[in-house]
Amino acid sequence: MRRIAILAEGAFEWHYGKTGIGVIHYGKDPVVAVIDSTQAGQDVSQALGASFGQGIPIVRNIHEALAYQPNALLIGIAPMGGALPKAWRWQLLAAIEAGLEIISGLHMFLADDEELKAAADKRGVAIWDVRRPPDKNRVAEFLPHRPGSHTVLMVGSDCATGKMTVALELDREAQRRGLKSAFVATGQTGIMISGNGLPVDRIISDFVAGMVEEMVLDFTTTNDWVFVEGQGALNHPGYSPVTLGLIHGSMPDAMIFCHKAGSTTIEGYDNCPLPSLARMIQFNEDTVSWVRPERPCKVVGLALMTHHLNDQEARKAVKRAKDETGLPATDVVRFGAGVLMDALSKYFAL
Amino acid sequence: MRRIAILAEGAFEWHYGKTGIGVIHYGKDPVVAVIDSTQAGQDVSQALGASFGQGIPIVRNIHEALAYQPNALLIGIAPMGGALPKAWRWQLLAAIEAGLEIISGLHMFLADDEELKAAADKRGVAIWDVRRPPDKNRVAEFLPHRPGSHTVLMVGSDCATGKMTVALELDREAQRRGLKSAFVATGQTGIMISGNGLPVDRIISDFVAGMVEEMVLDFTTTNDWVFVEGQGALNHPGYSPVTLGLIHGSMPDAMIFCHKAGSTTIEGYDNCPLPSLARMIQFNEDTVSWVRPERPCKVVGLALMTHHLNDQEARKAVKRAKDETGLPATDVVRFGAGVLMDALSKYFAL
Repeated sequence: MRRIAILAEGAFEWHYGKTGIGVIHYGKDPVVAVIDSTQAGQDVSQALGASFGQGIPIVRNIHEALAYQPNALLIGIAPMGGALPKAWRWQLLAAIEAGLEIISGLHMFLADDEELKAAADKRGVAIWDVRRPPDKNRVAEFLPHRPGSHTVLMVGSDCATGKMTVALELDREAQRRGLKSAFVATGQTGIMISGNGLPVDRIISDFVAGMVEEMVLDFTTTNDWVFVEGQGALNHPGYSPVTLGLIHGSMPDAMIFCHKAGSTTIEGYDNCPLPSLARMIQFNEDTVSWVRPERPCKVVGLALMTHHLNDQEARKAVKRAKDETGLPATDVVRFGAGVLMDALSKYFAL
Repeated sequence: MRRIAILAEGAFEWHYGKTGIGVIHYGKDPVVAVIDSTQAGQDVSQALGASFGQGIPIVRNIHEALAYQPNALLIGIAPMGGALPKAWRWQLLAAIEAGLEIISGLHMFLADDEELKAAADKRGVAIWDVRRPPDKNRVAEFLPHRPGSHTVLMVGSDCATGKMTVALELDREAQRRGLKSAFVATGQTGIMISGNGLPVDRIISDFVAGMVEEMVLDFTTTNDWVFVEGQGALNHPGYSPVTLGLIHGSMPDAMIFCHKAGSTTIEGYDNCPLPSLARMIQFNEDTVSWVRPERPCKVVGLALMTHHLNDQEARKAVKRAKDETGLPATDVVRFGAGVLMDALSKYFAL
């Protein structure tokens, strides 16, 4: 079993720290400390204002973290572009020196860094670059899923709109109901949580759909419900190809639309306003019909991210989204995924 | 200057041989011989039934090709998946032995093949893997093009529907009219023809749009008309992410829709019927509005591929497409690109 220390220096908050937070919240292995000198002294629950993470200390640096006897150091941020902040190098080297496995979801592979690689080899320590794509390549073959299986893909209005969390919560809810269900990871955090999956944004564009198809076919063979983590957004100027590859690779039977309440532009692109919810839902559904016109795919529910709102505001936001789209809506973290699982069950029973 | 021999063993025909044919038809450097033992003895024009290629001999193998004193051997096929046919290896080794540069657009990089690499190093011969992506990565920034520039992207119903040819013919036609125009290559053949460009299908999905954006911005800085070669199709189950990356990266001002007359399914996917022309045009246009709703992009003309039809059938097919869509249509190879250039000029004058 891993005992994980998370490196999240200066960034242990909901947006940039989402990798670390996801592993704390949903991972199987215990997190024993979080490194963020700007919040040292608190515990995770206090720092985030979250209902989880009580008793997990936030510490100043790797030296303090070692007191909690971790055997792995996990890089807990997901910066745009994916480079390694220079100021972290000494902490990684200290962790390797102390015999910790290194787990990273950065775009740049730590095992390809000469200094880190040499240190890890010398100490006999593994570096797991979660984002390293498989050597294999595969073009999508447009194969049908096992009849009776239900593939549900999370889509959304932007990156960081809760797509992974919603898939994880739906999987938990399905299992709670006694259904044979699986979560399919498509990004670094999901892969760290589930121990498998595909770093979709690292795959060569010709093979994105094909590699996703193969993975989803595997899951649908042995599961009745397959909840696929989504990535990016069709209306994102940079990441839309990843999103479309996921849609055409997973060929979902239904979708859940994820949105951060109140967002009006793509994060980091002030000149790129979000279309209305109804419009985004329509064009996400439309993409399935481009290749499978005979069997449309519907968005059957909305998952709102409302952690930046108080309870009353959150309820208002959920009601507004419901009224605007005519679809069931909730915040799965705040109110549970039951409403969405009900909607899916009803949809497939029809 | 290069003197090119093209290796197209068993596949020197319009579909699988399109790389070699493109270089013969549009490239700047002369092709001195084509290797295809199944058609040896003819010239290129005879073998293809084409209006170009007179006097370029088709020969049995590399040994016969060497009589025409090539200084480069270009692999002239584009197979699905992109692997190197095993039976070709000896011919590549013989070419290297004879001092020829090797030019390849295959997915597998010949310079990474130990045997070929060792032979090339020993003989001091270069291996140019056209599909090798740049080391650089870049996320799209959604930057505006130079005002007054016109970016025109080719889209289509499938792979191999003439997108590169149409972009090249439009560029020629624009230059004929005295316009400052450029062709932007996005695939192996286009890159071989123009000497630059981006192998879009080899780029990591997170960076497809960003790398295309940077290249197109460069071209729009110094050209008034920028004709971008398209790839794949939005309704292709495997390659749609490449297509969307090209659309969102190039952010075109107008599009030309390319289609092989009479096609009814995606090539190689019998269970994937083509939507109607009107429907395909609609959803290609729609994708631009996802990120740029304030300024829609229109398909302003249709380019039909009709080389498999006789003249009368071709005229009928063009008329049918015009009637079906209400758009100007032509086959640029058979009838010239004038009709489409007229339509574009009119569109931008409005």
